[in-house]
Amino acid sequence: MQNMKIDKEWIDFACHLADVAGGIIRPYFRRDYTVKLKQDLSPVTQADEEAESAMRAEIRRCFPGHGILGEEGGREGDGAEWTWVLDPIDGTKSFITGKPLFTTLIALCRGDAPVLSVIDQPIISERWLGVTGQQTTLNDKQIRASSCEILADARLSTTSPFLFREEDKPRFLALSKQCAVTTYGGDAYAYALLAAGQVDLIVESGLKPYDMMALVPVLQGAGASLVDWSGRPLTIISGGDVIAAATGTLATQARNILSLALS
Amino acid sequence: MQNMKIDKEWIDFACHLADVAGGIIRPYFRRDYTVKLKQDLSPVTQADEEAESAMRAEIRRCFPGHGILGEEGGREGDGAEWTWVLDPIDGTKSFITGKPLFTTLIALCRGDAPVLSVIDQPIISERWLGVTGQQTTLNDKQIRASSCEILADARLSTTSPFLFREEDKPRFLALSKQCAVTTYGGDAYAYALLAAGQVDLIVESGLKPYDMMALVPVLQGAGASLVDWSGRPLTIISGGDVIAAATGTLATQARNILSLALS
Repeated sequence: MQNMKIDKEWIDFACHLADVAGGIIRPYFRRDYTVKLKQDLSPVTQADEEAESAMRAEIRRCFPGHGILGEEGGREGDGAEWTWVLDPIDGTKSFITGKPLFTTLIALCRGDAPVLSVIDQPIISERWLGVTGQQTTLNDKQIRASSCEILADARLSTTSPFLFREEDKPRFLALSKQCAVTTYGGDAYAYALLAAGQVDLIVESGLKPYDMMALVPVLQGAGASLVDWSGRPLTIISGGDVIAAATGTLATQARNILSLALS
Repeated sequence: MQNMKIDKEWIDFACHLADVAGGIIRPYFRRDYTVKLKQDLSPVTQADEEAESAMRAEIRRCFPGHGILGEEGGREGDGAEWTWVLDPIDGTKSFITGKPLFTTLIALCRGDAPVLSVIDQPIISERWLGVTGQQTTLNDKQIRASSCEILADARLSTTSPFLFREEDKPRFLALSKQCAVTTYGGDAYAYALLAAGQVDLIVESGLKPYDMMALVPVLQGAGASLVDWSGRPLTIISGGDVIAAATGTLATQARNILSLALS
């Protein structure tokens, strides 16, 4: 797979999908200073659904033989060789609290394996592009993960310490105590920062395929390690327990602590 | 105090200080993709110190009779009628992990009371300006806090659930359970979002005067409530336990839950 050549047309198309989604999402952001937040997070749902519908329409128009898996609209074209995996707004809480750190996630999978992806922040115009066999870019500049190999030097991130299963919470806290700093609230943006050398380690559980697939090519092309808690590469059928690390050494240390039987 | 007129020259000067700090801080942000994070957070300290020194120099040059209280350089001109309170980089963890949500905080106090402030994000160019008796602005557009009066509708934020005193952690969690969503990692940026109607409630403890003073005019001028956990207004000599709320009703509900004796 590493030697597979991804057609430039497909890379351009992934960026085009991000443009389409951004154009729809942008007007919804901070759109009403007195909007009451409904329990169903309705403004997000609306932006999410419209952006995904528009991306699906573009895929059907340009690549009618491809499958699609999206957060809002489920799966279509099951069994296709190529599948687009879409999350129009990852980081719902950032979106509804006005933080410009939510992202649009777009991945192309061949079979179960992601080979091309975009992580796009449409408000502050940051676009990460990951392609199998190529160096990852942020706004067309090549980036790479840090060289951090020691937990005591590591910047650890997770979306919320309360999202772990009950038995994993103390494991995460044990890991956090060994790291230099721990930050919260990252969602996919944290993985994009890891690819850019700004975060060294991320541990999460319960991710869905549309949360994960776009992370893989971006992190791989930046030299980072992205595996499940058992050390296996992530595919579209992986469970949602994830370790992303700037280096393999750091990933191994994190896995050792997370798998320790706690006394 | 509400009727006191703040001279436009001073408002312009506060913005000038933010420009000076931003010009120094910007080149340090994400400056080295392979920098190893030292335990002393040295890149931050360097940007912090240089930015504060430059602001202090400008204050001494233009307002030699004014006092200064800054995170890095301590207090000078004790007893002056007017004191500038400075935090060059609030949100150290955001800064060192590449999130453009750290802010420069600049407040002018008369005696102990803040009357003018700027919250500035120099990477994505967002500037909040709060002036006693005036409507708060974000990039020159008037903003106001939400009209949220019910905890079940409220977007709650705090920098980290682990920053509370041990006895206050369960109180915060009890409050969090009653709110619509809880987000972490905000620092001063969360208060700025509250002023813009994007966050409804913030509860924190252990803030320092240079963390707090710039929040007051920005939030007051957006119609928000900002008090300590006893319900008193914040001054330069306040303790660091803070409740910011979009409405007084919401603040009272939060205070009631935080002051409940827990069984």
